[in-house]
Amino acid sequence: MALRTPYLLFLGDAADQLAAKTANGIRQWRPDWCLGQLRLEGCKADLGLPDLTLEEAKAVGVQTLVLGVANRGGVIGESWQAVLFRAIDLGMDIAAGLHQRLTEVPGLAEAAAKAGVALHDVRHPTGTLKVASGLRRPGKRVLAVGTDCSVGKMYTMLAMEREMKARGWAADFRATGQTGILIAGGGISVDAVVADFISGAAEALAPAAEADHWDLVEGQGSLFHASYAGVSLGLLHGAQPDWLVICHEPDRPHMRGLPGKALPDLESCMALNLECAKLTNPGVQVLGFAFNTSALDDAAAKALLAETSARFALPCVDPVRGGVAALVDRLAEKG
Amino acid sequence: MALRTPYLLFLGDAADQLAAKTANGIRQWRPDWCLGQLRLEGCKADLGLPDLTLEEAKAVGVQTLVLGVANRGGVIGESWQAVLFRAIDLGMDIAAGLHQRLTEVPGLAEAAAKAGVALHDVRHPTGTLKVASGLRRPGKRVLAVGTDCSVGKMYTMLAMEREMKARGWAADFRATGQTGILIAGGGISVDAVVADFISGAAEALAPAAEADHWDLVEGQGSLFHASYAGVSLGLLHGAQPDWLVICHEPDRPHMRGLPGKALPDLESCMALNLECAKLTNPGVQVLGFAFNTSALDDAAAKALLAETSARFALPCVDPVRGGVAALVDRLAEKG
Repeated sequence: MALRTPYLLFLGDAADQLAAKTANGIRQWRPDWCLGQLRLEGCKADLGLPDLTLEEAKAVGVQTLVLGVANRGGVIGESWQAVLFRAIDLGMDIAAGLHQRLTEVPGLAEAAAKAGVALHDVRHPTGTLKVASGLRRPGKRVLAVGTDCSVGKMYTMLAMEREMKARGWAADFRATGQTGILIAGGGISVDAVVADFISGAAEALAPAAEADHWDLVEGQGSLFHASYAGVSLGLLHGAQPDWLVICHEPDRPHMRGLPGKALPDLESCMALNLECAKLTNPGVQVLGFAFNTSALDDAAAKALLAETSARFALPCVDPVRGGVAALVDRLAEKG
Repeated sequence: MALRTPYLLFLGDAADQLAAKTANGIRQWRPDWCLGQLRLEGCKADLGLPDLTLEEAKAVGVQTLVLGVANRGGVIGESWQAVLFRAIDLGMDIAAGLHQRLTEVPGLAEAAAKAGVALHDVRHPTGTLKVASGLRRPGKRVLAVGTDCSVGKMYTMLAMEREMKARGWAADFRATGQTGILIAGGGISVDAVVADFISGAAEALAPAAEADHWDLVEGQGSLFHASYAGVSLGLLHGAQPDWLVICHEPDRPHMRGLPGKALPDLESCMALNLECAKLTNPGVQVLGFAFNTSALDDAAAKALLAETSARFALPCVDPVRGGVAALVDRLAEKG
């Protein structure tokens, strides 16, 4: 799957800014692809992009209408459907990362086929996957792992891609979830593949490459999350990372969705991830830490990052507050 | 899914006895359910059961025709199809564990619907699964784990179920693969569920039970197999085992399907499985070892089992050569 760019970001009748977080992420990381936003009456989200009609978007070259909004249940709203059909009439592809598939909207698949455009349900993998081979392949890879879900793995890998590209390195962000796929224009939602193919999907996603090429692989879940650790382990084995970045949110009260379940400490998280990753890459090392310190004030955040960095003798950054240059610096040094 | 018993085992035109290994397993572990076998011309397999026509099978009370044979590719042979349609006409359900689905045979689903019988593609999970909760639940569970795939996990758990039932214990084998499902009459093929639901499937499979009830959960894959470890980990977390049995084939030259990749040593296998299992059951312990020593002669096998048992101060059995009484004895003692 490769998405055609540029995009028009559809925000529908989003109840608040958070409901448009997928569109927010695309806007932040791929501003050049985002020509405008399309909002229905009552929409409470705003990306600060020009409001375009479908016709205006077509005129300025939009290739794909992206549903960048989620409602409760992840369904395609009835009020959205006229927009989808009209976009197809105008020759646009449509991409969505919702639970409900575009192909489940009555008549939409037929209309798309007739118009010769594509519907991309990026949360639902298509195509044939292979079982992982476990064989080492050339190229270099960094994988974001974490103490929990939703601790900034996607953000950290996107920030590293941006930093590396700014330095002229060959680097590609590799998306493993729906928002990442819409940002990267391709990828595989690994938590939605059939279980036997998790690590095979990761092998396909970050394939053999030139010796000096870097893949920045988005992580998923956590080896310490009772619901999703299988996905994390398969991704760890298939990605064959040379380097791990440990992502963490210091003030989180418990594992996401599991009240009463404490987060692992950083030492345990490093040790188990390294042990498991060595199965497919015995040379794997920890590059450093990426913390989401948004709950702390500046002084407290700086103190925590410095203290953690000193404790492990490894870079510890907050990608939002201070960027990821320290992580890339270490790669420049260590190779 | 619950399969209706008794069964007629369909061997088709099996090229050799190994092609009928699923039927062999059902015959061995559920002899009371197996009223006969049905073989086409040229069939080279024989289960030692009465050869019955579909009509004879119907007359003696068969409820389900089970495809207990696999060919290269796991497809439904063309020469088998007339048999399937006739079985439906006679009111039998059909169950298969092949890659190809029964519902892919043109007209078969319609014929089954019309006759009011069920088609069970046991390799392909149906029904809605939930994401795992990770919450502890009552009842006791044993999970077979291993140094590799195909080292006797299913056999070991079935042998423990038989031994426990013979002692009057409340015990249920819980199937996680296609052959196990046909033997148990139900279960979930966990390597075929969507990745996010691996541990949730395991929670559903071995649910809350009486405090003195034992679930014997069939294992899958190995934490040390680069292709399938994600499935193994999700199953480990979802099963929440109180006890692990470590399954191993001593003379295997390399990890299955991965030439050149050595098997882990028993110490590493125990340590990593225990560490990961503690996430959902901090009290988990290793019960003992089950070795497949079929490549060794009697004296060598006995010496190896005794030596391993002494080295770890834990029972080490070959379930085929000597049964699993030593494992159940230890449970009786430890509870």
